[in-house]
Amino acid sequence: MSNIKVVVAGPRGRMGSEALRMIEKHDDLNLVACLDMKHEGERIKDIPGLPAFDAKIFTDIDQCFQAVDADVLIDLTTPEYGYLHTKTAIQYGVRPVVGTTGFTSEQLAELTDLAEEKRIGAVIAPNFAIGAVLMMQFSKWAAKYFPDVEIIEKHHDQKLDAPSGTAVKTAELIKQEREKKQQGHPNEQETIQGARGANVDGMHIHSVRLPGLVAHQEVIFGSPGENLTIKHDSFHRQSFMSGIKFSIDHVMKLDVLVYGLENLLE
Amino acid sequence: MSNIKVVVAGPRGRMGSEALRMIEKHDDLNLVACLDMKHEGERIKDIPGLPAFDAKIFTDIDQCFQAVDADVLIDLTTPEYGYLHTKTAIQYGVRPVVGTTGFTSEQLAELTDLAEEKRIGAVIAPNFAIGAVLMMQFSKWAAKYFPDVEIIEKHHDQKLDAPSGTAVKTAELIKQEREKKQQGHPNEQETIQGARGANVDGMHIHSVRLPGLVAHQEVIFGSPGENLTIKHDSFHRQSFMSGIKFSIDHVMKLDVLVYGLENLLE
Amino acid sequence: MSNIKVVVAGPRGRMGSEALRMIEKHDDLNLVACLDMKHEGERIKDIPGLPAFDAKIFTDIDQCFQAVDADVLIDLTTPEYGYLHTKTAIQYGVRPVVGTTGFTSEQLAELTDLAEEKRIGAVIAPNFAIGAVLMMQFSKWAAKYFPDVEIIEKHHDQKLDAPSGTAVKTAELIKQEREKKQQGHPNEQETIQGARGANVDGMHIHSVRLPGLVAHQEVIFGSPGENLTIKHDSFHRQSFMSGIKFSIDHVMKLDVLVYGLENLLE
Amino acid sequence: MSNIKVVVAGPRGRMGSEALRMIEKHDDLNLVACLDMKHEGERIKDIPGLPAFDAKIFTDIDQCFQAVDADVLIDLTTPEYGYLHTKTAIQYGVRPVVGTTGFTSEQLAELTDLAEEKRIGAVIAPNFAIGAVLMMQFSKWAAKYFPDVEIIEKHHDQKLDAPSGTAVKTAELIKQEREKKQQGHPNEQETIQGARGANVDGMHIHSVRLPGLVAHQEVIFGSPGENLTIKHDSFHRQSFMSGIKFSIDHVMKLDVLVYGLENLLE
Repeated sequence: MSNIKVVVAGPRGRMGSEALRMIEKHDDLNLVACLDMKHEGERIKDIPGLPAFDAKIFTDIDQCFQAVDADVLIDLTTPEYGYLHTKTAIQYGVRPVVGTTGFTSEQLAELTDLAEEKRIGAVIAPNFAIGAVLMMQFSKWAAKYFPDVEIIEKHHDQKLDAPSGTAVKTAELIKQEREKKQQGHPNEQETIQGARGANVDGMHIHSVRLPGLVAHQEVIFGSPGENLTIKHDSFHRQSFMSGIKFSIDHVMKLDVLVYGLENLLE
Repeated sequence: MSNIKVVVAGPRGRMGSEALRMIEKHDDLNLVACLDMKHEGERIKDIPGLPAFDAKIFTDIDQCFQAVDADVLIDLTTPEYGYLHTKTAIQYGVRPVVGTTGFTSEQLAELTDLAEEKRIGAVIAPNFAIGAVLMMQFSKWAAKYFPDVEIIEKHHDQKLDAPSGTAVKTAELIKQEREKKQQGHPNEQETIQGARGANVDGMHIHSVRLPGLVAHQEVIFGSPGENLTIKHDSFHRQSFMSGIKFSIDHVMKLDVLVYGLENLLE
Repeated sequence: MSNIKVVVAGPRGRMGSEALRMIEKHDDLNLVACLDMKHEGERIKDIPGLPAFDAKIFTDIDQCFQAVDADVLIDLTTPEYGYLHTKTAIQYGVRPVVGTTGFTSEQLAELTDLAEEKRIGAVIAPNFAIGAVLMMQFSKWAAKYFPDVEIIEKHHDQKLDAPSGTAVKTAELIKQEREKKQQGHPNEQETIQGARGANVDGMHIHSVRLPGLVAHQEVIFGSPGENLTIKHDSFHRQSFMSGIKFSIDHVMKLDVLVYGLENLLE
Repeated sequence: MSNIKVVVAGPRGRMGSEALRMIEKHDDLNLVACLDMKHEGERIKDIPGLPAFDAKIFTDIDQCFQAVDADVLIDLTTPEYGYLHTKTAIQYGVRPVVGTTGFTSEQLAELTDLAEEKRIGAVIAPNFAIGAVLMMQFSKWAAKYFPDVEIIEKHHDQKLDAPSGTAVKTAELIKQEREKKQQGHPNEQETIQGARGANVDGMHIHSVRLPGLVAHQEVIFGSPGENLTIKHDSFHRQSFMSGIKFSIDHVMKLDVLVYGLENLLE
């Protein structure tokens, strides 16, 4: 089994600490250092709540990559730091796997060029849950044959925005494939406003918010006599870890930057 | 097994013909006549598409009840005829089981008084699907303990109105029981209008319309850590027949008018 | 719009009569004749319950293809007739779209060779429900990333065999892709026999049989923190018609025999 | 708002610590002490991971109830301790709310007599999730009208036994109400053993085990043309807390022992 030397940026965050626990479970991954804004020089095992890794914490990315020999940087921080870390990692020949969203298209273009120039693999993905990514890909595929579709997304009642970003993105992917259609009966009427949900290019999105729920979405395709439903349930942020592990394994074989987990699948 | 002599009003309609097929399957039911607007004096077996009953068709309700000895009138016609038939049946001592909706409260009061005076059973129900009625009753009960609830109803895309009458009625039953609550986060925002559905007293109703669907509703109650869902799927109008059979059996033991199948259950 | 001249074999069957109704709805399809075991020389419109087509009924396939100019034969009969009809159609230069199952591999090889020799398109599919075929394809794809999967199939309680053919076929497709796995806890125990369902290569299949149901299947993939579910509901045999129409459109552009609707999709 | 003085037994357990967090959220509950096997004389706030309560820890129940004035004992320990604690609490005039299962019928009888003698309320419940209890009650009710029912329960793949205790208990409740029925077609055959699940009195139970799942159950009732489904999803052990709070509120008004949350509901 090959041994991949990993640096994690953001080890104390919700996603970062989950990544540490994931690394702990895989013998082929070896945590060699962490990047943090605090705790310079301390060990991960000394931070309460984190796994018992001996890995040292750096607050400066250059010092980190000069001091340790790393294969992969897992970055689960913020867009600003994510961009800086990704760029620096590529320059040091360290392959980035980046879960932060919000890169501008200029930043992505620059990083893509840099990775190409250095002939080094990189993965940037707004969503590392393989199940969610497959749900969107399957929906895009099904839309070729089923022009009628509605999306129901369900989240806990502390969520502020409706519909969810994933629902909107799913609708956009469907829109690329299906023949445009204003669904429902032409004379249909809402006797109470909002009943038919949000209308996106003739599709309807419905947002349920209830305590107890985590993050769920179903995409329902209908045609005479049948329905095809693709449903994703996210119960815990652990769900992102299988996609991160998958990306680490693949980034080692890449020599370009890949944006979006869907472009690694299949 | 007791033998109940039945007259069906509206035998050529969708529901009426389904009722004939239901009677055919039950040895304790005996079709003695039908009431129709046409086909005076013909036999049911002579009408194409109807079961092979010998029962005679009458276009005049008085002549019908004078000619045949009947126990129960199953009326699946229109509100106007339904009211007239119900009143006449009670006067002749025939127990009505009526599936037409749209009676006024004055008409219901008059029929209730008449049944009481004649000491005769009668059942009028806007919905004879036992499953749908139980869904509403369970929802009403659950609302005592779960103030957070959303309703998703799904129908074929030829339905004109949204939300469905059943969804609105379910919300009204829930409203009677739960502590009033404006659900969702106080600062929640729709980035696309309608996403959060129709707002009924702080509850949210979502109406899905797709080809292939028949008539479906789920009522989802949420509280920290758990969800309780009550779902009804109506695949075929056969679903109304078990409630009609149930009502026929019960109306024979009643000496008052009962409105709503829920008041016969339990 | 191109006009496709169609012959239907088996017009009085459940699927055949549904196919006639489908043809009625599409202006680009033109019914030119039917093949039946009875009613030689009669017209479809004279058969009670069938749409008002003028098309003539033949009991001999050679006479049929000699008398009428046809583009496509839709065969919805039995394996024996299906084989004979398909072979004869190809010889006459008529493109077959065949929904009967149960061809032997020898028969399929022979028909494939014949189509190739005549350079004529043909489609044979055990399942024409596009939704069901996509469910199986998506399941196969998801199995690459999710080794843990269970299948729940639900049918009406008049079905004799369990599990369903579709469930078994889905399991076989998944088996081709996933890393072999005996699922569940190694020490798991059934306190009541059968609770964990049918074990197919370490996967579990559960068969639900209830009145009211039609034909439904869900394939549930699980991994830490998430579930991905692909569900198909068949409410009515109409569901097969979109796949038959799709196949008619495609068979006109083919010059080989294609087995399985999945090989036409995308 | 009345102020209820609460003692928690088992504060470091999964359920006990969740109970402390629940008490923290309710102004009308006041934690006055805890019972533990260790940490005699320490304060709850000094135990890592527990909320910042000043309440003192006792290892001896007599000393605890002699030292503090308590209204309610929440016991989330083991059957042995649970029995002892319940008995002692009643003798001291403290009302027990007990979530431990496994009491013998002799113990229950003794505790019931003791509560009656002391005229003091007590609640013992094997399941404090209100949603799960309602699911069982609704199922029992629906079984009067729907003799055909199947149960699907889904749990994480670390669960050892199948079917789950809740599924078996649900089946027993249904059995009390429904007319006995061997479901499915009389000639139905399993082509792969186990497909039709566990047979309990003619009902079928199916146990799904997948990573990602928590604890879920659906009870599906079928009759011609319709299905009624009652589904409970437990996402987190928080789900037990609403039932515990509900029981605390009710135990203050009781003067007998009530076994089972269902006997407090409605």
